[in-house]
Amino acid sequence: MVRQSAPTEKLSFGLWTVGWPAQDQFGSASRPALDPWDYLPKLKEAGATGVTFHDDDVAPFGTDESERQPYFDRFKQVADEVGLTIEMITTNTFSHPVFKDGGLTSNDRAIRRFGLRKLLRNVDRAAELGAETFVMWGGREGAEYDGAKDLYAAHARYAEGIDTVAAYIKEKGYGLRIALEPKPNEPRGDILLPTIGHALGLIAQLDNGDIVGLNPEVGHEQMAGLNFTQGIAQALWAGKLFHIDLNGQRSIKYDQDLVFGHGDLGSAFFTIDLLVNGFPGGGPDYEGWFHFDYKPSRTEHFEGVWDSARANVEMVELLAAKAKAYREDPEVQEAMRYSGIFELGEPTLGGGESLADFLADRSTYEEFDVEKAAERNFGFVKLNQLAIKHLVG
Amino acid sequence: MVRQSAPTEKLSFGLWTVGWPAQDQFGSASRPALDPWDYLPKLKEAGATGVTFHDDDVAPFGTDESERQPYFDRFKQVADEVGLTIEMITTNTFSHPVFKDGGLTSNDRAIRRFGLRKLLRNVDRAAELGAETFVMWGGREGAEYDGAKDLYAAHARYAEGIDTVAAYIKEKGYGLRIALEPKPNEPRGDILLPTIGHALGLIAQLDNGDIVGLNPEVGHEQMAGLNFTQGIAQALWAGKLFHIDLNGQRSIKYDQDLVFGHGDLGSAFFTIDLLVNGFPGGGPDYEGWFHFDYKPSRTEHFEGVWDSARANVEMVELLAAKAKAYREDPEVQEAMRYSGIFELGEPTLGGGESLADFLADRSTYEEFDVEKAAERNFGFVKLNQLAIKHLVG
Amino acid sequence: MVRQSAPTEKLSFGLWTVGWPAQDQFGSASRPALDPWDYLPKLKEAGATGVTFHDDDVAPFGTDESERQPYFDRFKQVADEVGLTIEMITTNTFSHPVFKDGGLTSNDRAIRRFGLRKLLRNVDRAAELGAETFVMWGGREGAEYDGAKDLYAAHARYAEGIDTVAAYIKEKGYGLRIALEPKPNEPRGDILLPTIGHALGLIAQLDNGDIVGLNPEVGHEQMAGLNFTQGIAQALWAGKLFHIDLNGQRSIKYDQDLVFGHGDLGSAFFTIDLLVNGFPGGGPDYEGWFHFDYKPSRTEHFEGVWDSARANVEMVELLAAKAKAYREDPEVQEAMRYSGIFELGEPTLGGGESLADFLADRSTYEEFDVEKAAERNFGFVKLNQLAIKHLVG
Amino acid sequence: MVRQSAPTEKLSFGLWTVGWPAQDQFGSASRPALDPWDYLPKLKEAGATGVTFHDDDVAPFGTDESERQPYFDRFKQVADEVGLTIEMITTNTFSHPVFKDGGLTSNDRAIRRFGLRKLLRNVDRAAELGAETFVMWGGREGAEYDGAKDLYAAHARYAEGIDTVAAYIKEKGYGLRIALEPKPNEPRGDILLPTIGHALGLIAQLDNGDIVGLNPEVGHEQMAGLNFTQGIAQALWAGKLFHIDLNGQRSIKYDQDLVFGHGDLGSAFFTIDLLVNGFPGGGPDYEGWFHFDYKPSRTEHFEGVWDSARANVEMVELLAAKAKAYREDPEVQEAMRYSGIFELGEPTLGGGESLADFLADRSTYEEFDVEKAAERNFGFVKLNQLAIKHLVG
Repeated sequence: MVRQSAPTEKLSFGLWTVGWPAQDQFGSASRPALDPWDYLPKLKEAGATGVTFHDDDVAPFGTDESERQPYFDRFKQVADEVGLTIEMITTNTFSHPVFKDGGLTSNDRAIRRFGLRKLLRNVDRAAELGAETFVMWGGREGAEYDGAKDLYAAHARYAEGIDTVAAYIKEKGYGLRIALEPKPNEPRGDILLPTIGHALGLIAQLDNGDIVGLNPEVGHEQMAGLNFTQGIAQALWAGKLFHIDLNGQRSIKYDQDLVFGHGDLGSAFFTIDLLVNGFPGGGPDYEGWFHFDYKPSRTEHFEGVWDSARANVEMVELLAAKAKAYREDPEVQEAMRYSGIFELGEPTLGGGESLADFLADRSTYEEFDVEKAAERNFGFVKLNQLAIKHLVG
Repeated sequence: MVRQSAPTEKLSFGLWTVGWPAQDQFGSASRPALDPWDYLPKLKEAGATGVTFHDDDVAPFGTDESERQPYFDRFKQVADEVGLTIEMITTNTFSHPVFKDGGLTSNDRAIRRFGLRKLLRNVDRAAELGAETFVMWGGREGAEYDGAKDLYAAHARYAEGIDTVAAYIKEKGYGLRIALEPKPNEPRGDILLPTIGHALGLIAQLDNGDIVGLNPEVGHEQMAGLNFTQGIAQALWAGKLFHIDLNGQRSIKYDQDLVFGHGDLGSAFFTIDLLVNGFPGGGPDYEGWFHFDYKPSRTEHFEGVWDSARANVEMVELLAAKAKAYREDPEVQEAMRYSGIFELGEPTLGGGESLADFLADRSTYEEFDVEKAAERNFGFVKLNQLAIKHLVG
Repeated sequence: MVRQSAPTEKLSFGLWTVGWPAQDQFGSASRPALDPWDYLPKLKEAGATGVTFHDDDVAPFGTDESERQPYFDRFKQVADEVGLTIEMITTNTFSHPVFKDGGLTSNDRAIRRFGLRKLLRNVDRAAELGAETFVMWGGREGAEYDGAKDLYAAHARYAEGIDTVAAYIKEKGYGLRIALEPKPNEPRGDILLPTIGHALGLIAQLDNGDIVGLNPEVGHEQMAGLNFTQGIAQALWAGKLFHIDLNGQRSIKYDQDLVFGHGDLGSAFFTIDLLVNGFPGGGPDYEGWFHFDYKPSRTEHFEGVWDSARANVEMVELLAAKAKAYREDPEVQEAMRYSGIFELGEPTLGGGESLADFLADRSTYEEFDVEKAAERNFGFVKLNQLAIKHLVG
Repeated sequence: MVRQSAPTEKLSFGLWTVGWPAQDQFGSASRPALDPWDYLPKLKEAGATGVTFHDDDVAPFGTDESERQPYFDRFKQVADEVGLTIEMITTNTFSHPVFKDGGLTSNDRAIRRFGLRKLLRNVDRAAELGAETFVMWGGREGAEYDGAKDLYAAHARYAEGIDTVAAYIKEKGYGLRIALEPKPNEPRGDILLPTIGHALGLIAQLDNGDIVGLNPEVGHEQMAGLNFTQGIAQALWAGKLFHIDLNGQRSIKYDQDLVFGHGDLGSAFFTIDLLVNGFPGGGPDYEGWFHFDYKPSRTEHFEGVWDSARANVEMVELLAAKAKAYREDPEVQEAMRYSGIFELGEPTLGGGESLADFLADRSTYEEFDVEKAAERNFGFVKLNQLAIKHLVG
């Protein structure tokens, strides 16, 4: 019932995480920036096996096209030397002010065209560097004011943009899949595709939705007060959990990007339990990378940057070990059975039971002892206490 | 550009709204309960043209099946006499403790079977009474603890249940459509299908998803800090806005169910603007009912109940008039044009423009003056101020 | 530096916790109610050494005054037999609809007078039963609408009510202290004294504020997204942490009242660390009870009620042990020193340093090497990771 | 009952508002920066009569002390020419990385000393320029991790710092008052003095608290889901509302700093009603400035900056006119009376009524008809609907 090997060797970091110089909304940078490739050996040391980046993290926005290639070449070369896989690439369509109203849904069509070209250019780069996943975070696709967008057109343009990128991938025969990253707000007042659910809903409307899935981020869902484990479970159920961003968030507030596990620790435990051990009754497993998308706190200098990188890796390892022991514990298995965890796996209608059969089954309704059934003790608190004791004990 | 007639004559109330005796989590009822039909004349007086109910609102849970029919007959008779359309019916699978772990996703299979039968029984009732919409709110489908559910099985069972109800509607040839009502939490710690998006995502996985859509509630989305107008816009874009629940909520907290407009007034204005005037550049119109799902405050006795019912109707009428004037104002139209509202309606790729053409268009990327484009003043603040002045002025 | 004995033997439960029959806003009771004294032996078994109650928990509201005494006598007798201390008593001024607009700040003066008399009657009871603390939670003191109260008068009346209760305690010579319990909202849209801070602010305006302090509840502060440990630290600093309500809450939503530690686990660890081990550099210790104010989930029957009661006790014991080990670990002590935790204990001005001296100290400002100082690595992430590893490891 | 003249001619802007070049957490500046004095004529045109600034807004941090004076001289000269009063000055102890762990509560004592000197230097400046108010916002006083601060020491140091500034003001005989600005989080995970209440609680512990009050900001309280009007009412009741920051926030999320009224419009109406018309039953009036602390959206260029500045002024004028009409409307006055708004002004105990008298009054308790009193219809919904109709009608 518990998977024998956890894929916790697929651990990657965004270059922009350890590379963040800690300039924020209210203050200037507290750390110098290194050259992109200078972070790679230390990422490896911290336990990473993969690395990811935005186009502009490696070659700054505005670098002349003819001069950009050497940046990527050098980065790739060092990554290879160090032994880091470039597993995912993403595109910055949010930092330069040209994207202040979005890249794919800007009210300005010329800007949408520019944004889409930037994306397609980066698809080529992703393919060339051997990435598997192409993350799209539309951080500026949104508005502060309800009247600032034709919201039908906005969804139509967003879909058009994603579909075009997907069509391009197919046309080129690249082995890439797109992973959308939802976020409810910040830096826009409200962002389009605010949650896992909204992204699933949009994907269902795409022409090329088969290669489009999700890259949910722990903190982004929690910024809407949503349960992250439940969210990625729905994505897995829909066959759409392509990639995942791990970090920490403490309640509903600005995007904190703490170390994974330094936010809601109980939730982190169950997230890792699902990713590593799978659903209790079977179902689709997560096969992708554990990708850290966090920010080393601004109070830290370089030592703290690497402390925080290591802390992310440690948390996944620690929680994976705890989750494995939790699932393997016979007392837990018995408590899960008592709570009906496995019973939920049984279809409500019997195999071959027709609607007519079901309606004719008086034991189910007319003769069902509702009051007695209502007295069932589900044992959820006891089961949760067992989990917490495995986590903490 | 602005619709000539607003469908604001389709105004309905849940019976459980004015009928709520105001017992809450921390206190006992502050108002007596009347017989169900006794609310109808006053609802009509308050401006309603329709009424809706849960099965158990009319005939109490546990009423012997043989004795239930007269309740519904009498209710229907009075509704007809008064002139109220029974436009929607919904099923209570959340109040009785048998449903304490849900109706369609309870870990207890016998309870799921009971819940599903209760739903099917109510489908017959809905058809018999001529309702158009069958709302499903799974208020107890969820958990307080991440380990309390196999979340794959939970989604599978939820889908199985909805699909079975839809299959039954089709089999019987009823003219009903199902509308799912999302909610993020309360009374469960986390509820399945927490937002409009998650429901859209689930519908995409159904066998009978064609007759399944949404009944979003203002306050429920706002309990997750989400923008309601943006949410229903995505539902409309997906062709799934079947019904709507209007009420008021003030920020992220417990489910307040205030009068519509007594929560986030600015948001209410833009919601009505969208429902009544449609998207600025055209697109699918909302054709359904304006349904009030609110609670008269517990501080009020019967006078206050009817004050609050009238206040809901007044708010829709007032906001519809304001929204119409807003859209018709030439200064607003010019400001919308200036902000690029209509420009977003133009596809990003030209008609007949191939990917190859697009990639070859150097004016779009290689020769695009990014810095100049970045200087565009979008005028969103000015446009919003025009909206607020129309609303308040 | 670490206290030798943690006062974790002072563990009490509200009678209304295990006694909650699990009727909520959306559903009817899922458990029967026992007689009040019937809960006591099992509370003792679960690890409690104290018990608390609202007046109406023991003798129902409306019981004729002449018939009330036997209820309390019997309760006291059984508590004594079982060995449970009645350490705190509180007054229900929120459940009966007469209090629908509050007990001390109702717009209706006759109701305020009734509420105040009910409070004074219960002060006598508290004294008679030997309680140390008289908790006042004004759950209905508030409004849904900003215009529903004269907010100056509301604060004045609230202060008048509390001051009168305090004056009565003094006049009678009772050994009681009042502890105010803040809450931001629910059941009212906004409640007066929404946070620890607001209560501290009000106490400062009282005539008899010397015997008025705080009873902060974990979940209530977290419903406003506030850091509980920081909040009780301010209360301790002000000498006002008289009592404490432990429970669990997951993010900003309705009042969940989960088992302590089943909400934000990391926060629970640091709360216990502060309560048990005190401030790192010394300062006032918490000397009061660890009081559980939670609700056994509605999915549970009696077995689950007692599972949850035991879970609360276990969590405090577990976290206290972990916190003790954390503080005693030399690596942690060194990391705390590195982070400047103890340095913050040093006054910013030197002993005897005058303002003139300070202004004349050029090394502090004119010659201070700002850029160098800015490079300090505070090591907070590493310290937090050490804490998490102690908690989880 | 309604004040004859509203002090809406005291309208000031922070220089950092219109001067914000719109660099945010996720993107670079979208507007150029002008010289500080170049904003003044247009601020005047937009309707301002006052201006405020942080020290570093006028002379950049790091400018040699000997070269700083000319910046302030020139600024003052232009302000005088234009006719703008410099009514408030505040100190930037949050942007430079030296303050990354705070200015007054940094764990690093040398940094605290530097921060305190910077504050004292700016007090001189404030006095010299004739400001009335010295705002202190400790945006970096806080932590991301509960273990990162000795929270007793943190409060002690914060109090020491504020008290020292206040003592200096007194020693110098300056006519300045300090106004603390609370904020719950951002840029720190949790900030000390997170709400109005916590600041009131701290002030009560100060030696020089008599010249220390509050500068509450609309959005900051709303980031904790708190009711702003209720908060400033408590501050007024405590005699501590020295200054006020108006802006807009939409629900609990990152700090939005929208135009005042572009957030929660209903709340903005009642805030202005309180500030302009006072409490319904009398009490302390607000005599200070209406200070705008907002950010022109990043989508706007200079035109939008001035559109947004004007929008703030318009909103105050519009809402003040609406609020005046609301209070003067006899129907509203009657509804207020019906709801008991004025009745709350009557003390609960009678003039000269002793505790003994009160306890002896059987009509208040023993003979009080609770059930009848519980039936009172408070009319709050109707009153709120009247307010909304005045606002919108």
